Amino acid sequence: MIKITLPDGSVRSFEKDVTPHDVAVDISEGFARNVISAKFNDKIVETTTPLTTDGNLTLYTFKDDAGKKAFWHSSAHVLAQALEELYPNVKLWVGPAIENGFYYDVDLEDGVISEKDFKTIENKMIEIARGKHDFKMRDVSKAEALSYYEGKNDYKVDLIEQLEDGTISFCDHSTFTDLCRGGHIPNTGIIKAVKIMSVAGAYFKGDENNKQLTRVYGISFPKQKDLTEYLQLLEEAKKRDHRKLGKELELFTFSQKVGQGLPLWLPKGAALRERLENFLKAAQKKAGYEMVVTPHIGNKELYITSGHYAKYGEDSFQPITTPVDGEEFLLKPMNCPHHCEIYNSKPFSYKELPKRFAEFGTVYRYEQSGELHGLTRVRGFTQDDAHIFCTPDQLDKEFKDVIDLVLYVFGSLGFEDFTAQVSLRDPENPDKYIGSDENWEKAEQAILNAAIDKGLNYVVETGEAAFYGPKLDFMVKDALGRQWQLGTIQVDYNLPERFDLTYKGSDNEMHRPVMIHRAPFGSIERFVAILLEHTGGNFPLWLMPEQAIILSISEKYEKYAEKVLNVLENDEIRALTDNRNETVGKKIREAEMQKFPFMIIVGEQEEKDNTITVREHGGEDLGTITVEEFVTIVKDRVSKSLKTFK
Amino acid sequence: MIKITLPDGSVRSFEKDVTPHDVAVDISEGFARNVISAKFNDKIVETTTPLTTDGNLTLYTFKDDAGKKAFWHSSAHVLAQALEELYPNVKLWVGPAIENGFYYDVDLEDGVISEKDFKTIENKMIEIARGKHDFKMRDVSKAEALSYYEGKNDYKVDLIEQLEDGTISFCDHSTFTDLCRGGHIPNTGIIKAVKIMSVAGAYFKGDENNKQLTRVYGISFPKQKDLTEYLQLLEEAKKRDHRKLGKELELFTFSQKVGQGLPLWLPKGAALRERLENFLKAAQKKAGYEMVVTPHIGNKELYITSGHYAKYGEDSFQPITTPVDGEEFLLKPMNCPHHCEIYNSKPFSYKELPKRFAEFGTVYRYEQSGELHGLTRVRGFTQDDAHIFCTPDQLDKEFKDVIDLVLYVFGSLGFEDFTAQVSLRDPENPDKYIGSDENWEKAEQAILNAAIDKGLNYVVETGEAAFYGPKLDFMVKDALGRQWQLGTIQVDYNLPERFDLTYKGSDNEMHRPVMIHRAPFGSIERFVAILLEHTGGNFPLWLMPEQAIILSISEKYEKYAEKVLNVLENDEIRALTDNRNETVGKKIREAEMQKFPFMIIVGEQEEKDNTITVREHGGEDLGTITVEEFVTIVKDRVSKSLKTFK
Repeated sequence: MIKITLPDGSVRSFEKDVTPHDVAVDISEGFARNVISAKFNDKIVETTTPLTTDGNLTLYTFKDDAGKKAFWHSSAHVLAQALEELYPNVKLWVGPAIENGFYYDVDLEDGVISEKDFKTIENKMIEIARGKHDFKMRDVSKAEALSYYEGKNDYKVDLIEQLEDGTISFCDHSTFTDLCRGGHIPNTGIIKAVKIMSVAGAYFKGDENNKQLTRVYGISFPKQKDLTEYLQLLEEAKKRDHRKLGKELELFTFSQKVGQGLPLWLPKGAALRERLENFLKAAQKKAGYEMVVTPHIGNKELYITSGHYAKYGEDSFQPITTPVDGEEFLLKPMNCPHHCEIYNSKPFSYKELPKRFAEFGTVYRYEQSGELHGLTRVRGFTQDDAHIFCTPDQLDKEFKDVIDLVLYVFGSLGFEDFTAQVSLRDPENPDKYIGSDENWEKAEQAILNAAIDKGLNYVVETGEAAFYGPKLDFMVKDALGRQWQLGTIQVDYNLPERFDLTYKGSDNEMHRPVMIHRAPFGSIERFVAILLEHTGGNFPLWLMPEQAIILSISEKYEKYAEKVLNVLENDEIRALTDNRNETVGKKIREAEMQKFPFMIIVGEQEEKDNTITVREHGGEDLGTITVEEFVTIVKDRVSKSLKTFK
Repeated sequence: MIKITLPDGSVRSFEKDVTPHDVAVDISEGFARNVISAKFNDKIVETTTPLTTDGNLTLYTFKDDAGKKAFWHSSAHVLAQALEELYPNVKLWVGPAIENGFYYDVDLEDGVISEKDFKTIENKMIEIARGKHDFKMRDVSKAEALSYYEGKNDYKVDLIEQLEDGTISFCDHSTFTDLCRGGHIPNTGIIKAVKIMSVAGAYFKGDENNKQLTRVYGISFPKQKDLTEYLQLLEEAKKRDHRKLGKELELFTFSQKVGQGLPLWLPKGAALRERLENFLKAAQKKAGYEMVVTPHIGNKELYITSGHYAKYGEDSFQPITTPVDGEEFLLKPMNCPHHCEIYNSKPFSYKELPKRFAEFGTVYRYEQSGELHGLTRVRGFTQDDAHIFCTPDQLDKEFKDVIDLVLYVFGSLGFEDFTAQVSLRDPENPDKYIGSDENWEKAEQAILNAAIDKGLNYVVETGEAAFYGPKLDFMVKDALGRQWQLGTIQVDYNLPERFDLTYKGSDNEMHRPVMIHRAPFGSIERFVAILLEHTGGNFPLWLMPEQAIILSISEKYEKYAEKVLNVLENDEIRALTDNRNETVGKKIREAEMQKFPFMIIVGEQEEKDNTITVREHGGEDLGTITVEEFVTIVKDRVSKSLKTFK
């Protein structure tokens, strides 16, 4: 008999050679039907792998990331079989699961796959899947493996040559065999829906001197409905692509001459940024933060002291040298060293702590051009950065206050669905970490207390803390269900040490303060991108660049339109007029495109009655009302969209 | 007879060999008494030099820069004679006039001059001056000149060897002779007051491999009163030194680790900056500017296109290279190329112009460490930059509008005394300039019209325009009478050409817009420095970091103090409380040091009557009043200190 421990800590006894599938059945038949992959003692296994020792077992369904991985990895096998059947000369290289789906890199010899072939491949895959073929792993010797592929497929031979004898395995299903490490679903029959997404060129081993292979991308699901939903989501995501919306709404642009990954913020985008910054500034002021301003470069010595040079030095923007003096400066990858130097510019007593230095600090980090993506992966971005310098005893309260601030930010920007991830140190490797045991205890307890106290939905990741302190990350789900990491609160015992930061305690002795790094937005660039994709450009009313547009029915009512505008502006409602000589229908259509929350139509009747006719973005009619009534509605909506803070 | 033309254009006839002094007497005896130097046909001459041809003559008194130069150059001769008499082994090298006074570099052999010797030197100089010795120039041959110094003074021999025969002259006064190009006051008797300021080491020919000489600095005046005032001014300037005030008021700091010339703005300084920025932002918004945000680096290509690489490339911060891609970026020395790329990001029609892009853009320019000085000479600074892109016909109005904005800024910040300098092209060198004749005419006329229309006190400097356009500079006098160049409005035909900027005209053809660069503050760093020295830290009330401090007489009144604070904050008056357990006398003294405009004292009586006792910075008493009365006073003063704009 062996003992199997499940993730909830429960232990069940089974006969030796029990399979993960058997364990699942033991839990519940219904559950077992959905289990498609498993992990035993930190190693991914098949659901059919016989278990021979005591151990920890995790069972995965398609809902789990590991389940999806097994599903898509298995689907790659099916794709490979389909390609072999359709293109007899095809030579396979590798085919992994990826974030959304899978691909296979193949050499088609003279063949070409184009979009018109996708349907054929999909049909072939479904045909294979319906055969309900089991995936069966078997160990092979290196000699066997080589002899299987030699003369037939040099790519696989190359792969096998790099492997050690005794670690090589094949996977068979149906008539198809592939070199494979394992991690499959039970059988092909579970794959019910398949879509070939695209093809692309990919050099063998990623080396452009080698032959260019064809990479075939696909995705698959256990239900047709899942695929339909996924494709709809993709369609919606395409519409909400922040690069597309950023252009349409004239928020930002890029210039090859200025450089890739270096956004230029156009007037409307700069105003949006400023509104976001002012929103956070006001809250931070209430929360006792003080703004500082620091330069965008620092002497190389500064980053050697901070340790950032060791981290960013080689792989990032190279040092800037100066003529005559021959000094070396770095573009700043982080604001923290500068804030440490501000802290160090005068002595502090414990009575003056915490000090909370905040800055919208623009930092620069090199990314390879292939990695750049709109505003989410850039080479220069502005952090809504702050560093709190406090005594260890103040950590608890400071952590809670930061969470309040982050929740206020999320709430006011329409992110309702988020979880927190608490990263603690690995208790089995205490030497990996800087800072005393006592301080770690205090900090970890402070974070957990804060998470509980604030009612966060959180998970604990033991061993995931940085060497210099534990942290809490917020994972936010957007309107399309995609997860984004937004907002980190990081405790740091390292920089206070490296910069020799001190304060005088009540005992008149010098002590080390603790630092908290925090940024609710993270990067303003990335945040705006996520906000654009989350809202599709329909920002919360308080944030909209323009809250209303006044459309005059004809040029005759221009004067009345301007009068209405004047009233709105006096009430601090941001509005524009559109008095062009166009039909009101056209004006409405364009205003809808531009996402104005309210369209105000003025014509003869309105002018006579001193009223306006209001239409909301998306179509709803608010009817004909007075400007004052409209102002009340807008103010009410603004105050509802903006959460209250302290 | 010869014809002498005076600066006002009037022409007088004199017999040949008339001297500038004679011309001065011809104008007025009283004026002649003050004339101490002259310029004839662009050459500085003595007041005793016989004039032999027709020509333009300018006569200088001590009030003119050229007059001061002659006065101080002559004083250097007197200093040299005094040193020769006091230190018989002394060997003279050179002794020029400088911005404030003069110096002489001398080799004292084994002698040393220290501060206790200054009085002796001053007395000797005054003794010589009182001899009323005439300064007399005479031409000498190179052989004569060499034989005079050979064996006695190798420094002068070295100087003479570099001169061409026929261009060498000596100046005699009293028993003293010096190698000299001329430009003296009539006689030593005019020098009434002398002060030796300091001594320093200075290498012969500035080469540290040569012998170190002694540089003796002095200053002199035609009246004792002038010297007294100058020394008082120096004393006051020392008190107002922005580096000293910046530290006392905790506005900014520097860190060797971050780097020299890279200011770190502390909370109070950052708040001051922000207030200045918001002040200008609000005015710019009214004036139709749109804010943009651009990165602090740009691809080297961008600056090759703009021409800035040719100008800043070699002598400034060197390019930043990237790993892998091997691209080259530069820290931006200017914001204009980025704004040109923003203009270029979409097509414009003449109907949409002018576009006015504004940015508080931080730029980096390398300065040698010896050149750095507080916030006035730094390596990184933020420009309150904007670029106006307009049609040539719009220049006139745009220029006037920019002047309005600049005057609003100066007025609201307490700069009352300024002149404008209009730099036009040299009509004799039309090929030096880019842009059509017609556009230059238009631009120069626009600037002159604007200067006249706005009633500016301006001077025209012909030939001082940049090759790419004419400009207007504002020269501002501070409270100590020192001149600062603040605010430039520059027309530019060059960048629109280099960036191929266009707009579609009413004729449906593509045209080049004109660009105006403008920055009322110039650099925020330098502006804050000047403002600190101008105001001694007593900023205009609207700008003060804190407008009032509430001093409780004892801890018993803390609660009432906080209540008063609350009322002030609700009325948007920035205030602090000081509830420390200290005497109110000490609190007042410290608050005076910190330059709080108002000190509010609260104790038993005030709490009982619901009043406050108010004292102004500098001592004046506003007596015991209600908080509401105080709020009215502050609001009134703020609105008076802040000029109105549009």
